[in-house]
Amino acid sequence: MLRTPICDLFRVEHPIISAPMAGSSGGELAAAVSAAGGLGMIGGSGPGPEWLREQIELVRRRTDRPFGVGFITSAPDTDQLMETALELRVPVIAHAFADPSPYIRAAADLDILTIVQVQSVELAREAANAGAAAIAAQGIEAGGHTGYTSGTLPLVPAVVDEVGDIPVVAAGGVADGRGLAAVLMLGAAGAWMGTRFVASEESISDPYAKEQIISHGADDFLLTRVYDIVNDAPFPEHVGERILRNRFTAAWHGREDEVSLRKAELARELAASLEAGDTSVRRVLAGNSAGMVRDILPAGEIVRRIVEDAEAILRSRPGELLG
Amino acid sequence: MLRTPICDLFRVEHPIISAPMAGSSGGELAAAVSAAGGLGMIGGSGPGPEWLREQIELVRRRTDRPFGVGFITSAPDTDQLMETALELRVPVIAHAFADPSPYIRAAADLDILTIVQVQSVELAREAANAGAAAIAAQGIEAGGHTGYTSGTLPLVPAVVDEVGDIPVVAAGGVADGRGLAAVLMLGAAGAWMGTRFVASEESISDPYAKEQIISHGADDFLLTRVYDIVNDAPFPEHVGERILRNRFTAAWHGREDEVSLRKAELARELAASLEAGDTSVRRVLAGNSAGMVRDILPAGEIVRRIVEDAEAILRSRPGELLG
Repeated sequence: MLRTPICDLFRVEHPIISAPMAGSSGGELAAAVSAAGGLGMIGGSGPGPEWLREQIELVRRRTDRPFGVGFITSAPDTDQLMETALELRVPVIAHAFADPSPYIRAAADLDILTIVQVQSVELAREAANAGAAAIAAQGIEAGGHTGYTSGTLPLVPAVVDEVGDIPVVAAGGVADGRGLAAVLMLGAAGAWMGTRFVASEESISDPYAKEQIISHGADDFLLTRVYDIVNDAPFPEHVGERILRNRFTAAWHGREDEVSLRKAELARELAASLEAGDTSVRRVLAGNSAGMVRDILPAGEIVRRIVEDAEAILRSRPGELLG
Repeated sequence: MLRTPICDLFRVEHPIISAPMAGSSGGELAAAVSAAGGLGMIGGSGPGPEWLREQIELVRRRTDRPFGVGFITSAPDTDQLMETALELRVPVIAHAFADPSPYIRAAADLDILTIVQVQSVELAREAANAGAAAIAAQGIEAGGHTGYTSGTLPLVPAVVDEVGDIPVVAAGGVADGRGLAAVLMLGAAGAWMGTRFVASEESISDPYAKEQIISHGADDFLLTRVYDIVNDAPFPEHVGERILRNRFTAAWHGREDEVSLRKAELARELAASLEAGDTSVRRVLAGNSAGMVRDILPAGEIVRRIVEDAEAILRSRPGELLG
């Protein structure tokens, strides 16, 4: 059976981590992934500490296996949310988009492991120096918020070379067994997957978003800052978000300076359109791996299929290629 | 020994194609790659038909193995250059950035195989319908000109799923044996590599560019259109170029509208700076895989090492992972 260093580190069966996506990864999804032997993550930012507490408790009612919570660390309420995660002794915590150092130390004092998600080799080096237990190297093809620097394929080996013995998982571009087998060849210790798990029965993304993901292809998603500018979203400048092309991105992507100037007006227009049920300006977050996602499945089934496919590829393809 | 369908298709020993980079891939580089068992490609666009004829003849003096010529098909002199390639019966021709259909037919009449480089699933479908013998699926991490759509990791399997039996090679992000082993797991039939071969002894890139590539990392390259706008370069709007961050990109990337307006003035300034030997505005083309390129090597040695490393990984890593 497929085993990597993150299986021992996080005490899980399979080297698959479901991304802690705000608005998508609630306790049901995390529990289903963990129960199937992966590491299920709750997207901890957004609704607040009470919601987070409920989701953590929900996971513990469903499974006694390890799970985690991930934060948009640059968001203003991270301190408060971290308190909840630490108080409830969540086994694994993930950070992204801001300096994780103080949080890593606070977690380590309670024997909680930290994964840091990075978008460049430089950020990986900083995370390693700050004491990350594992690093998620996130490429430009990832869904939702990600960096502009590099695709996953060249980023992962560069990060592996940089951080030595710290396990690196590949984030962005993996949605099936082929992708998992591929990143393991790069030296990754597993895959961190978002888009594939958005299209799961347990994700709390709305049915419209799930339908859009399974019915669109790799070409249909673009990396943009237009919504973040309008929404004053708490992300650093080197980060954008990969979303489905829609009427709003068609009108404004590439005109960011103008979007900044007309922010208040555009925010009002957007809110009115969304209120009126206009899906043509809805923000659907997903990565290019949506091209490989064609069905909404139970999350546990997703874990099982990806592991099974990756194992089959690793067993057969090298022999076919090497003759 | 590692064999894939492109080995039979192009009658080469190894599933490695050196990218036909204008200004970098002359006859010496193509000949060295082909002599080592890869498919060496001449970057056919730029200096004109007489230069192209000389490079093709140079390859044939060095080796009797198959090689190819690749074009920036959107450039205005492609018809004339194609005439030379067809007249000299170059075994393989590659196209990118414009509709290849008429060229594929003309080549097929002479039993010449065409590789089409694409940046999206849609372009892959068009290339397959037009009769491409193989498709190079190029991700956003590639060096020099590439698309904005997707990283190589999710693009390759999506293209493989789309084009059925036509062999797909992965372009962008591969510079070592790990990358080759990875893309083979995705279902690719080989890798198309640029950056690694720019830093070869035989490439005609100048020593300054080679030094910059081996001394910079994955984070140091960005995808931009600023030089293309200033230079009126013959590329479609969905294409930019990945280059080393420098003083010019620091000043102008993200201000493309202004660059368009001040094009003539900026072109004069750039020309004057370059004339005066100012390297801080030199355009150094490379992909994020530069992070894995640390030495200038003979191209044949590059081919041998990558194949050797990929074979070693494919022999050992699946067993280690599967236990």
